[in-house]
Amino acid sequence: MPSGGAAGKSFRVSRQIYKGRIVDLRVERVTLPNGHAVDLELMHHPGASAVAAVDEARQVVLIRQYRHAAGGYIWELPAGVLASADEAPADCAARELREETGLVAGEMRQLGTIFTTPGFCDERMWLFRASGLTLGIAQPEADERIEMRWFTPAEVDAALADGTVCEGKTLVALLMEQRRRD
Amino acid sequence: MPSGGAAGKSFRVSRQIYKGRIVDLRVERVTLPNGHAVDLELMHHPGASAVAAVDEARQVVLIRQYRHAAGGYIWELPAGVLASADEAPADCAARELREETGLVAGEMRQLGTIFTTPGFCDERMWLFRASGLTLGIAQPEADERIEMRWFTPAEVDAALADGTVCEGKTLVALLMEQRRRD
Repeated sequence: MPSGGAAGKSFRVSRQIYKGRIVDLRVERVTLPNGHAVDLELMHHPGASAVAAVDEARQVVLIRQYRHAAGGYIWELPAGVLASADEAPADCAARELREETGLVAGEMRQLGTIFTTPGFCDERMWLFRASGLTLGIAQPEADERIEMRWFTPAEVDAALADGTVCEGKTLVALLMEQRRRD
Repeated sequence: MPSGGAAGKSFRVSRQIYKGRIVDLRVERVTLPNGHAVDLELMHHPGASAVAAVDEARQVVLIRQYRHAAGGYIWELPAGVLASADEAPADCAARELREETGLVAGEMRQLGTIFTTPGFCDERMWLFRASGLTLGIAQPEADERIEMRWFTPAEVDAALADGTVCEGKTLVALLMEQRRRD
């Protein structure tokens, strides 16, 4: 985890450039620990959760989603942005899992938290492993076109090797799960 | 890798919101494959490379950098943005490694490419493994305050377990290297 977070913030001016549905873009004048003052572009993000739901055969559920920014469909963990400052990351993970796959988690364990792109964005992503799964009803949002599929351990290995899985948080969680498994 | 990238792009209008040093923020009206038209915030990014440089004792070099967006110092792979549309990702990785650590790679092997945050940004990150290392001279940029350190395999394991490493691309590459090692 980062340390010394207060260092270098003696002088800081923030200017909001744009506020949209997800994006909250700011330019901040920051004095770095080395004394240099720089203008840093900062995308402020509310944070998000993602969940690797694992069944008794150690299969993992992935969803295939249209990602305009990636130029097409990609396989990812069920995930989403924290609904409010009050939503606990574990509750967000459980909610997104239920909405996107219909699965309800009996147990939810935190794998870790990651910064996805700290060079320009403060997004923090909480990763969870869900087990003890039962089936509820999926409730995808209007702009989410979701196909879900269970990947066997061998299929996960293949998807990691051939680039079928090519998205950051999903790679981290699947590599962690693969390590736990082996 | 994404497939069907052309699908749903029958109608697309792009409006630039902001162009900065790294950030190029656009709002694009896109018709999704399901027929819904939506305004999507897209941060356009030129792409980047990151490199896990591994010595003969299987130690990996990490750098400790001040990341305003992460609230402090974090350990990361040497990495940086492609200098131009012409720069090959492997050349970028070699350049960033040399600038940030002084190391020159004898061999550079691609581990994969990842989308860091495809929900709002088209950044693509090329991951490399560098070996056959020799020492040149580090040339950090003015706003980079860099401390480098070699992590033994046991220290990498500890850093993955205790959250010392908490950044997406670095986790992916170290988990891949750990898997290769074990």
